Amino acid sequence: MPNVIGNLLVAQSGGPTAVINASVAGVVVKAKKYRSIKNIYGGANGILGILNEDLIDLGQKTPEAIKSLRHTPSAALGTCRYKIDFKKKPEQAALDMDRLFEVFKAHNIRFFFYIGGNDSQDTADKVAREAVKRGYDMRVIGIPKTIDNDLPHTDHSPGFGSAAKYVATTVMEVAADISSMATDDGACCVIELMGRGAGWIAASAVLAKRQSDDAPHIILLPEVPFDENVFLAKVKETVERLRYCIVVVGEGLKKADGSEYSADTNRLDAFGHPVLSGAGDRIVELVSGKLNIKARSLKLGYAQRCAEHYASDTDSREAFACGRAAVDAAIRGKSGFMVKLVRISGTPYKCAIGLQPLGDIANVEKMIPRDWLSVDGLMPNKKMIDYARPLIEGTVRVPVEGGLPKFVVLKKTLIARKLPERGYLPSNASSHSGQSGNVR
Amino acid sequence: MPNVIGNLLVAQSGGPTAVINASVAGVVVKAKKYRSIKNIYGGANGILGILNEDLIDLGQKTPEAIKSLRHTPSAALGTCRYKIDFKKKPEQAALDMDRLFEVFKAHNIRFFFYIGGNDSQDTADKVAREAVKRGYDMRVIGIPKTIDNDLPHTDHSPGFGSAAKYVATTVMEVAADISSMATDDGACCVIELMGRGAGWIAASAVLAKRQSDDAPHIILLPEVPFDENVFLAKVKETVERLRYCIVVVGEGLKKADGSEYSADTNRLDAFGHPVLSGAGDRIVELVSGKLNIKARSLKLGYAQRCAEHYASDTDSREAFACGRAAVDAAIRGKSGFMVKLVRISGTPYKCAIGLQPLGDIANVEKMIPRDWLSVDGLMPNKKMIDYARPLIEGTVRVPVEGGLPKFVVLKKTLIARKLPERGYLPSNASSHSGQSGNVR
Repeated sequence: MPNVIGNLLVAQSGGPTAVINASVAGVVVKAKKYRSIKNIYGGANGILGILNEDLIDLGQKTPEAIKSLRHTPSAALGTCRYKIDFKKKPEQAALDMDRLFEVFKAHNIRFFFYIGGNDSQDTADKVAREAVKRGYDMRVIGIPKTIDNDLPHTDHSPGFGSAAKYVATTVMEVAADISSMATDDGACCVIELMGRGAGWIAASAVLAKRQSDDAPHIILLPEVPFDENVFLAKVKETVERLRYCIVVVGEGLKKADGSEYSADTNRLDAFGHPVLSGAGDRIVELVSGKLNIKARSLKLGYAQRCAEHYASDTDSREAFACGRAAVDAAIRGKSGFMVKLVRISGTPYKCAIGLQPLGDIANVEKMIPRDWLSVDGLMPNKKMIDYARPLIEGTVRVPVEGGLPKFVVLKKTLIARKLPERGYLPSNASSHSGQSGNVR
Repeated sequence: MPNVIGNLLVAQSGGPTAVINASVAGVVVKAKKYRSIKNIYGGANGILGILNEDLIDLGQKTPEAIKSLRHTPSAALGTCRYKIDFKKKPEQAALDMDRLFEVFKAHNIRFFFYIGGNDSQDTADKVAREAVKRGYDMRVIGIPKTIDNDLPHTDHSPGFGSAAKYVATTVMEVAADISSMATDDGACCVIELMGRGAGWIAASAVLAKRQSDDAPHIILLPEVPFDENVFLAKVKETVERLRYCIVVVGEGLKKADGSEYSADTNRLDAFGHPVLSGAGDRIVELVSGKLNIKARSLKLGYAQRCAEHYASDTDSREAFACGRAAVDAAIRGKSGFMVKLVRISGTPYKCAIGLQPLGDIANVEKMIPRDWLSVDGLMPNKKMIDYARPLIEGTVRVPVEGGLPKFVVLKKTLIARKLPERGYLPSNASSHSGQSGNVR
């Protein structure tokens, strides 16, 4: 593909992570090295902002500001859950796509990078195909990002390592606490973790286990249909032996019939909505109700996505490297690919960076292989440990002010618009309800 | 008081903190400097272990093991919630007290240190008075400890600073995350924090606020009767202006009639127990039900007591200093006092250590003064900020192994018992129910 000269646009999408900004930093730092890349823009609030022609001039930011992104959680450019959905909303999607290319052309965008999970890679794929179809010379590369670690074809996704490090640390600390409180009665502590339908985050809590009796004692994964009796027997046995039991549960835990364990339409709150009871609270009710054991729950929620103060340095470096690699690939003429991490060796840990066609990514959810778990399915085995251990190495150094982390807030001054306002309203993908399952 | 020669016994009580072990380390390090102190024992599981004559020889531990206690959360000696209750269980209490002094005498305990909150200081007070009454020459000193910060007469309690640092950091990180997700719909995130009837931990989340629009936007404290309308109006105004709103709520939030906001006996779970719905979940229901705004909750739970990986170095040093000061006081002949922290100046922050009669401590709960809060009661003001800010300075350095903290587990090898087994069963203060309010 002949060389192209023009501007670059990078945007962030979906739920943030502790290292998603490191990927933006990687893109910006690398892009500055190529003369064929002129201006470096960031899209405010993902694709939604691009539809609004809300572009931020990242090339004008100081090197210090860009460097600070490497230790700042959240999506510094802003993010969205907006989906260009040709299946459900074909007319809207067609309007959106036309508008996107109007914006790309108006600002001579020739390099487009979209950082996100499954849905975002799907969007990137559609944009890449459209560019070809429309004969508009633009290189589109997806950059992986998700704490859920459910993107296929990449060894793991930037964001996961930091979430894993945070949850394993918390499990270790809570276990120290509870075990020292454990007197004759016994106690059960249930820690609910994110990951939606995939159990990667919950499974990574196994890293807290240095000795066989260490917590967590049970990990309930969405991949393994929940069997109350097997579970309760193990809680009972553990409490009788150790006087305490730490249970980790993935929010997306499922019953044998495939339905979500946390869903419960039998109970309504004061407003007539189903009671918002997470999987953790349900497990607490089960343990205290059936075993008469004191049980308490923790729900770390969003904290898992953004615990920068103890983020994995390995994760942060890889996120940065993915951003850099995306620019290199685009400059080499590649388009329609997602950057992926390829594990070269486990000990010593070594990852290379590769490319995977975007079309292979969308709508595929990577789950934990069954042979990475114990026979009863209640504990990941050595395969999972060997996989996850290297990803939590090192701690990001976060500057401190007044005893607390000092993050950067990127000023979102928009560049001058060149187009008339969008003549239609975008459909909004995010939900008003506040009560529905694991939508974040 | 003439000098006394004999052995020392230190024990931990109640809920652990990130720095309660630092106080044990302070006691041990200081005790080794005095020749009048012979053996240094730790009581396993607080007063309950002492009743069982379960004593650990701390004098034999290596200096490295003792030093490691300074960065290890949990109660390394074990803890309990056992109460010697002369009011409710006078016969049991009399038996317990006799047994305690049997153990003290059998092991020539002449220095007794009890590290804990209100109930534990009450126990220490009773033991000190009994020693005088029985003519047994033993110096009893209480060492303050509680993340709830509700002990009176001391400027603050060891354990609080670390909890404050952890929750303020988490609020800051979650706010960065949510604000970058904030698109047109708006979102509300509710973070439930510990503290039982006192709002100190929840109030300390104000430290996350560097600019006036920074999170948290609302802090609901148990000290301020909850007014749904005032609260909802502020959530609405905040979401309209910023597109997101971070609400912090103390678990002990109360209605105007003084009852707990989280208690709800109208809803029963599958086992007929009241639905275990914390204050955070109730607020989420309220916001999504009344305002139709997407709302999610976090419940950090026990993690607030034990987040060693980001514990306050100031807090840890003070906890250590309190342990040392307790030994000094006892050697000077003092008994029946609690060590307290006395603030000498705010800027630069300087605290001295003093003593307060144990009788002044028991059954007094220190609350946040009303004039430390805004007029509407929904945000602490500069007085609270100036008070809490210095307590979170510095971060404890925790050794790392495999990307995770490395804590010490003190081997609890018991010394040889000298007494026959206790001829009666102790009443057990901890609860089986698992469903009751804020009992931890």
